[in-house]
Amino acid sequence: MTLREMLGVELPVLQAPMAGVQDHALAAAVCEAGGLGALPCALLAPEAMRAELTALRARTDRPFNVNVFCHAPPEPDAARDAAWRAALAPYYVAFGFDPAWGAAGAGRQPFTHAMADIIEPFRPPVMSFHFGLPDADLLARVHGWGTRVLASATSVEEGRWLEARGVDAVIAQGHEAGGHRGHFLSDTLDGALGTFALVPQLVRALRVPVIAAGGVADARGVEAALALGASAVQVGTAYLLCPEATTGALHRAALQGEEARHTAYTNLFTGRPARGIVNRLMRELGPMSPLAPAFPLAAAAIAPLRIEAERRGRGDFSPLWAGQNVTGCKSIPAARLTRELAGKPSQGRRAWRC
Amino acid sequence: MTLREMLGVELPVLQAPMAGVQDHALAAAVCEAGGLGALPCALLAPEAMRAELTALRARTDRPFNVNVFCHAPPEPDAARDAAWRAALAPYYVAFGFDPAWGAAGAGRQPFTHAMADIIEPFRPPVMSFHFGLPDADLLARVHGWGTRVLASATSVEEGRWLEARGVDAVIAQGHEAGGHRGHFLSDTLDGALGTFALVPQLVRALRVPVIAAGGVADARGVEAALALGASAVQVGTAYLLCPEATTGALHRAALQGEEARHTAYTNLFTGRPARGIVNRLMRELGPMSPLAPAFPLAAAAIAPLRIEAERRGRGDFSPLWAGQNVTGCKSIPAARLTRELAGKPSQGRRAWRC
Repeated sequence: MTLREMLGVELPVLQAPMAGVQDHALAAAVCEAGGLGALPCALLAPEAMRAELTALRARTDRPFNVNVFCHAPPEPDAARDAAWRAALAPYYVAFGFDPAWGAAGAGRQPFTHAMADIIEPFRPPVMSFHFGLPDADLLARVHGWGTRVLASATSVEEGRWLEARGVDAVIAQGHEAGGHRGHFLSDTLDGALGTFALVPQLVRALRVPVIAAGGVADARGVEAALALGASAVQVGTAYLLCPEATTGALHRAALQGEEARHTAYTNLFTGRPARGIVNRLMRELGPMSPLAPAFPLAAAAIAPLRIEAERRGRGDFSPLWAGQNVTGCKSIPAARLTRELAGKPSQGRRAWRC
Repeated sequence: MTLREMLGVELPVLQAPMAGVQDHALAAAVCEAGGLGALPCALLAPEAMRAELTALRARTDRPFNVNVFCHAPPEPDAARDAAWRAALAPYYVAFGFDPAWGAAGAGRQPFTHAMADIIEPFRPPVMSFHFGLPDADLLARVHGWGTRVLASATSVEEGRWLEARGVDAVIAQGHEAGGHRGHFLSDTLDGALGTFALVPQLVRALRVPVIAAGGVADARGVEAALALGASAVQVGTAYLLCPEATTGALHRAALQGEEARHTAYTNLFTGRPARGIVNRLMRELGPMSPLAPAFPLAAAAIAPLRIEAERRGRGDFSPLWAGQNVTGCKSIPAARLTRELAGKPSQGRRAWRC
């Protein structure tokens, strides 16, 4: 059985789940075009998750992917939190805020049986996990729905670990990828493997299919990833300008500017390394800082700064997630982009020639 | 004119110059197989350079590439040198050496008119430059020989800079590449672009042909690089086990062990970031250290430690240069490897299927 048969999709294109910049609308558009759309649930409260799943199911009867996180919940650490607030205090003061004040950041919950209770009635054809896998009983529950399970690996060790625990395919997340890096066995970034090195090594090491992620931005990138042995690709950044994405105006502008050529891993926005366009906060405090609290606690103290800066038209404190290759970003419907990625443009021309 | 026509080669495969682990023998074997072999000259004293060029010319009448460095010579800095020696002192003491003692490390000279005097009689069909370009008059002198000029870029900015100064093709050196990173406009590693992101961006930004380097290890990798728009590839790591390479026994063993999956940029061995297999010195002092003197001065104080450790059969202080993808390393003649990379195995089978 090929990966496409396993997932029930026509095209070897998976849309990367991107919490915070998309909802069911993007996922449904990709599914309807023949790719595998994804609904990121890590930021959703229970009622919102149910509403999004309902909306997605109403918009498509094709297979879709429900994505959740599997991080270990952080230990509270008052001293570290205080140090973080002290580092941010000058920005609070500059905005006229009380440095002791804190808005609750959007919570990022790991996958639980309670979340599974919400998801179960929708019987998602595919679920993907980031930052490892849930406990064995929870994973067995998901598999028991007939759901195909995908998870991200950033190294050969992680790929083998996932395969040994029964995933149906592994997403090879290369150094180029935007957003949160999904590592879970080693948190060092020194050895971050580029897509060109990671994909062939996972293809060689694993029996399950490998999905290439990181730097894949157009039909040529898809062709290259398949040449390296991948069975499909997962594309995120290229979808960020689609009308169906909820990407904010500042983020859209940054993706289209010269600054989009300069991204870096940063832990300032959530506590875990994620790749985004370098902005003021990253330049001044990082991009990586030992002061940032454990994931996802760093987000809470950033939230007021982000909200106020965005109100003033500045992305200085916004996570401008992007991969290293924004050349595929286009303000076109996601369905059309999906077919272009697969080398099947709707209008009979190879869009990457334009 | 295609890049292959410009360089006068049959195959879209350039052998990466690898100072310290190869001489004319590897270069000649690659040239004779239809690729572009390279002679790294940065570590060679004048007489050795002349001898190597003579030997290469005697072994092949096909085009070859002569590679030199273009770094700015370092300013002497006694305080920094003392700090570096202090950091290394415990290792000196453990070996019974006087920490004040220093062997002269192999010198790495930037390209000069004096070096051009030696090279000129050989009229190299191709020269490649690392760490930027020589001054305009020196570059014009090389072009005046009818020599085609290549240089490495790690970013779009560097690619444009090189194109504006008249290079004939740009080597896109991605994050995955082994050995010295060729950056020259920005020394930050935060934004190091993976091959999958760098190649398409340079192809889009430049008019001159782009050569993909970093992670390319077999015929599938070559196919993928060409799919991304590259006109050819430059491969280094895969050649390190060839009998024609002068790679030492410890280095060869490391390339074939599990540790080869873990590489990092390190400045400990020369003062500039270069990718190698993580070993004891990198784990204990780095891999990147602010104490390391400017390139190439760090090398001198490491040399006695390296020599003694290697005598004892340990690679603890050796630069074990390697890219992130060693899956293509094979102990086969370089000619056969070259043809396999180009998808033309000598013996009628696709070696990458094995």
